[in-house]
Amino acid sequence: MHTLVLLRHGQSTWNLENRFTGWTDVDLTEQGMAEARTSGELLRDGGYDFDVCHTSVLKRAVRTLWIVMDVMDRMWLPVHRTWRLNERHYGALQGLNKAETAKEYGEAQVKIWRRSYDIPPPELTGDDQRFPGHDRRYATLSPKELPLTESLKLTIARTMPYWHEVMAPEIKEGKRLLVCAHGNSLRGLVKYLDGISDEDIVELNIPTGVPLVYELDANLKPLKSFYLGDPEAVAKAQAAVAAQGKA
Amino acid sequence: MHTLVLLRHGQSTWNLENRFTGWTDVDLTEQGMAEARTSGELLRDGGYDFDVCHTSVLKRAVRTLWIVMDVMDRMWLPVHRTWRLNERHYGALQGLNKAETAKEYGEAQVKIWRRSYDIPPPELTGDDQRFPGHDRRYATLSPKELPLTESLKLTIARTMPYWHEVMAPEIKEGKRLLVCAHGNSLRGLVKYLDGISDEDIVELNIPTGVPLVYELDANLKPLKSFYLGDPEAVAKAQAAVAAQGKA
Repeated sequence: MHTLVLLRHGQSTWNLENRFTGWTDVDLTEQGMAEARTSGELLRDGGYDFDVCHTSVLKRAVRTLWIVMDVMDRMWLPVHRTWRLNERHYGALQGLNKAETAKEYGEAQVKIWRRSYDIPPPELTGDDQRFPGHDRRYATLSPKELPLTESLKLTIARTMPYWHEVMAPEIKEGKRLLVCAHGNSLRGLVKYLDGISDEDIVELNIPTGVPLVYELDANLKPLKSFYLGDPEAVAKAQAAVAAQGKA
Repeated sequence: MHTLVLLRHGQSTWNLENRFTGWTDVDLTEQGMAEARTSGELLRDGGYDFDVCHTSVLKRAVRTLWIVMDVMDRMWLPVHRTWRLNERHYGALQGLNKAETAKEYGEAQVKIWRRSYDIPPPELTGDDQRFPGHDRRYATLSPKELPLTESLKLTIARTMPYWHEVMAPEIKEGKRLLVCAHGNSLRGLVKYLDGISDEDIVELNIPTGVPLVYELDANLKPLKSFYLGDPEAVAKAQAAVAAQGKA
């Protein structure tokens, strides 16, 4: 049996301002850092341990991981960063807040972009400063890999090769993985592992700052999965995330 | 031309208690963290940038690197941890303070262990809790690689393969490296780069918390090297480290 732990980073400064963050590299708030500490304590006190960590190239995920590693006294663990675990790229919506977006595109249209599986928000243009091609950290990506916008479907499509090529083989070697990432890249992993449909994945809300533990069989099929921590607190965190998605 | 930056971690809790630290995984003090922040600011304000970072598996080096990456807004950079960049293993002296060591072995003998190039301190026994074979982070090391004690010579001998096999090829590919490590593993790199003799390397003291910049030619021969920052502060840091080495 293998154990895999997924962790969604906690509150960021733009969560607080209710902006579409996507690939914008905003930091955690104090509350977000406290959520990460709680996650680390839950993992440590629950007797979990790891051999390798994976995260995105966005600092809210990296800092969450750093805090967990520190609390668990595992700062020596190898860490791999990849853009494939980044949050969904929100295209031309990135940086706008809810009010600005509704004003520019209308409430109904925004709801479609937020709730649909495969309709991406409007594309950025290549000369937009928000285009990832202008950021050195994405210099090794091919033109086809650099997103101008992403639907949830597109996000999952670029996340899953990292599962199949990197994470799954490591787990099969017996390594215990901690994956510290974002709502939509983690949705991709959960959709695959639990065989969730395109319709249902849109409704699935992974709470922030709560470790999600998978116990997998030798073929990496889930035997069970559960959130660590007080069930009431977990339910509250899940409800908060669901409410965030509402207009 | 290539640029390489070496950085020795700042003050740790055992520096403060004047204990032989070696592979003991003690943390930075507040002053050590402040030294790391200053290093990050010097690098950022000096216009330095990096493509990849290397550090040891000891938290005083990892935390120093984390602080620098944070100050420079480079938390997304790839980081490689290796035991080969660890501090010298002090064998049976590890954990003892100066007074305890002098009482057990005599001042004269301790001076020899501190100042000689190739005379290692007494070996640990394999059942000693300080033996690295009991620590999961060293589980992939062969029995021959697991030290019972190390002279400076032995430390350099296990550091340099990492230079030749990992760091030098990366630099030749055009990558800018930041290496965040320890007094004696960095001495190995400096000895090799500057062609320092066995006798002279013992006298060379790398100050803590001051970035050491190397400009290298295409064959990785140093064109020049210098410490970043106010020369007076650098001289003071160097004198402080030299004084620490004295009985």
